[in-house]
Amino acid sequence: MKRIDEIGFGKLKLAQEPEEFCYGIDAVMLADFAIKMSKPFDKAIDLGTGTGIIPLILSHRTGAKTIDGIEVQENSFKLAEENVEMNDLAGRVSFININVKDVKAKLADRFESYDLVTTNPPYTKGGGGIQNDNMAKTIARHETLANLEDFVKAASFLLKDRGDFVMVHRPSRLVDICYLCRKYRLEPKEIQMVSAKNGQAPNIMLCHCVKNAGQELKVLEPLAVYDEEGYSQEIKKMY
Amino acid sequence: MKRIDEIGFGKLKLAQEPEEFCYGIDAVMLADFAIKMSKPFDKAIDLGTGTGIIPLILSHRTGAKTIDGIEVQENSFKLAEENVEMNDLAGRVSFININVKDVKAKLADRFESYDLVTTNPPYTKGGGGIQNDNMAKTIARHETLANLEDFVKAASFLLKDRGDFVMVHRPSRLVDICYLCRKYRLEPKEIQMVSAKNGQAPNIMLCHCVKNAGQELKVLEPLAVYDEEGYSQEIKKMY
Repeated sequence: MKRIDEIGFGKLKLAQEPEEFCYGIDAVMLADFAIKMSKPFDKAIDLGTGTGIIPLILSHRTGAKTIDGIEVQENSFKLAEENVEMNDLAGRVSFININVKDVKAKLADRFESYDLVTTNPPYTKGGGGIQNDNMAKTIARHETLANLEDFVKAASFLLKDRGDFVMVHRPSRLVDICYLCRKYRLEPKEIQMVSAKNGQAPNIMLCHCVKNAGQELKVLEPLAVYDEEGYSQEIKKMY
Repeated sequence: MKRIDEIGFGKLKLAQEPEEFCYGIDAVMLADFAIKMSKPFDKAIDLGTGTGIIPLILSHRTGAKTIDGIEVQENSFKLAEENVEMNDLAGRVSFININVKDVKAKLADRFESYDLVTTNPPYTKGGGGIQNDNMAKTIARHETLANLEDFVKAASFLLKDRGDFVMVHRPSRLVDICYLCRKYRLEPKEIQMVSAKNGQAPNIMLCHCVKNAGQELKVLEPLAVYDEEGYSQEIKKMY
């Protein structure tokens, strides 16, 4: 059953389908991290955008002229288009219903044209063989139709020289992220580990890469989602 | 001027040369992390061992039969040998005065013979051209005579299948570490970030790899060196 929520960013509204996939705090942190870490940008694209939460937040918080999103699942893609209409963002935000694997073939004219690429890809390795009652959720969460390398490769193809690439993922994939980003010349510049509470092992990581940049990484101070009173100050500031 | 200290591990004594290089908390954390993360081991080797602090701590805290160390600088190597005598460890701990770059050529008979390789390598990238009043300190701290890739390559050569590799380094080298370890089939399994105080950006990182292991990393809870009262409980437990 489709649901429409106000999501805490001005008057932005979001239609999503709880039985298929709802965005989480990860998406909010990713958008915030992208804005903090990137150079000011005119043209951005979000890979695996779901119902478009990241482009919507970026449209609200920046003056970017063009914000695109790619989504392979038709249902999510349709909701994303609905979200553009509902929020009067036509002309500024738009979505494409393709697999990130097909970016090179289907978006050849967009080669090296974006200032910023964001992604909140499926977290769990493999999963190609997984059969699940809810296939939409499986595709959003597992590497069913595309894996991390496909996302990184597509980002590298779309980004300008020195363009910014920002990703949220699981710390368990840190080695894969470092290895693949360097392989595709997206050099990690800042990494931030995120845990539920201060001092705990992280369960989310944020990573900012710059295409063709020098090899020097900064690991930032860790971020905690909660403190004794609920959401931490750092999280509250993201809205 | 040579100095001899009791270093907080039973009756262990250590001769070192403050004008050249003294071991730091990094070495103590590395030895502790190696013991915690590795499988029980009979045969270990430390690459770039300085005056032998890591082999000395490992001899004190484990029942390993053979603990070797490689050190390129002759002065440090001589002090390391002196430390073996002074602590009655002859036969169990021994040192070799070569460059890690020459491990394959000079220690061919030790190919895949060690259960554990540890290293606290020079932290700073490059430095080949650096001229310093104190060349010994420069070599210990900068990648003057060997770089990170040389250390990782030597470790991979010396380790048995499924052997443990444990390293301490700077977080700024995290991408290099992930990339090079995977390149030489030393798969990172646990990483721990260490900061001066809780909640701060890390300035040291510990990494445990297993040769030929599957690709699944655990990022552990961060470690703080100090709390309000001095050394943190976690650090105190290492002695």
